[in-house]
Amino acid sequence: MPELTSPPHAGSRPGGRSARVRAAVHRAIGELITDEAVEPLTIPVVAARAGVHATTVYRRWGSIGDLLADVATSRFSGDIVVPDTGSLRADLERYAADLAKDLCDPDTLALVRATIGIGGEQGAAACRGERQQQLEAILEREQARGGQPPSLERTTDAVLAPLYYRAVFTNEPLSPAWTLGLVANLLG
Amino acid sequence: MPELTSPPHAGSRPGGRSARVRAAVHRAIGELITDEAVEPLTIPVVAARAGVHATTVYRRWGSIGDLLADVATSRFSGDIVVPDTGSLRADLERYAADLAKDLCDPDTLALVRATIGIGGEQGAAACRGERQQQLEAILEREQARGGQPPSLERTTDAVLAPLYYRAVFTNEPLSPAWTLGLVANLLG
Repeated sequence: MPELTSPPHAGSRPGGRSARVRAAVHRAIGELITDEAVEPLTIPVVAARAGVHATTVYRRWGSIGDLLADVATSRFSGDIVVPDTGSLRADLERYAADLAKDLCDPDTLALVRATIGIGGEQGAAACRGERQQQLEAILEREQARGGQPPSLERTTDAVLAPLYYRAVFTNEPLSPAWTLGLVANLLG
Repeated sequence: MPELTSPPHAGSRPGGRSARVRAAVHRAIGELITDEAVEPLTIPVVAARAGVHATTVYRRWGSIGDLLADVATSRFSGDIVVPDTGSLRADLERYAADLAKDLCDPDTLALVRATIGIGGEQGAAACRGERQQQLEAILEREQARGGQPPSLERTTDAVLAPLYYRAVFTNEPLSPAWTLGLVANLLG
């Protein structure tokens, strides 16, 4: 197979071989986690699928957990545009709807589950991505408008937590009515 | 190694060889998921640790996902006594405190994460165990007393979901004050 080896310090050359290796490995993870694979997800398995040497992957990511965390970080950062409608309620409703739609996607869910399972603390943090910062931005805008938004903790418990819990732990749908209801429960 | 093979239909003989195999395999899972193991969790790895043949484990559980779901089902069913204090608020507070304590345990958390990662839908259901039924029992008792409890869905979103989300996705503590606050937010 054609091996996409990285020259030393290849990370500093954007768009070069290093970027191609990264793209191939990330793509391989995406394919493997949605396969009905019985094969456990390991660096040799990912490397074979990506068409690169396992040593390249080990050198760059260290472990399968670190690799999954890296994939999840890319996937869950910058993916949702924080709404800015001028109203806290409308912002939260739109944000919750966008997040629900994302978490309903089978590929997203497979990545979250695999990363939680293999990536430990670091993987779990990667699955939350920028969610806290995104919610915080919404709440801070309300404060700047002179409103009195709920705390970030309360908003996380009332909106983020049920979305993640329902997506990851149940097979109930994240319906639009239910999702809007979370915001209604928070804001009254 | 001494092989604990199962005779046909051994499942019908409680306390026999079948039960010993089951106990050994469940114990092996418990050890392996809390190891700082880089080795992926597979049936051959579990079988070797348990001192049984891999074929025995394959025959009985089919896949590592089914095996983890079985371990999680045993672990998360019958583990929490549903409180019956005569008050909805006190029942929910005690239940939430017990669940928080359980989810803080590193072994519990490791099992939840591994089962979510490998066991798919079935594993996720196993991690919830009897939580829905337990909450339902608390709410039904309040109804029988003539009270008007919140719905099971609302209670799940307000109490169960934040406990699971915080335990699995963050490294924030499930403090007693925060846990009691979930019930206060639900009941007002």
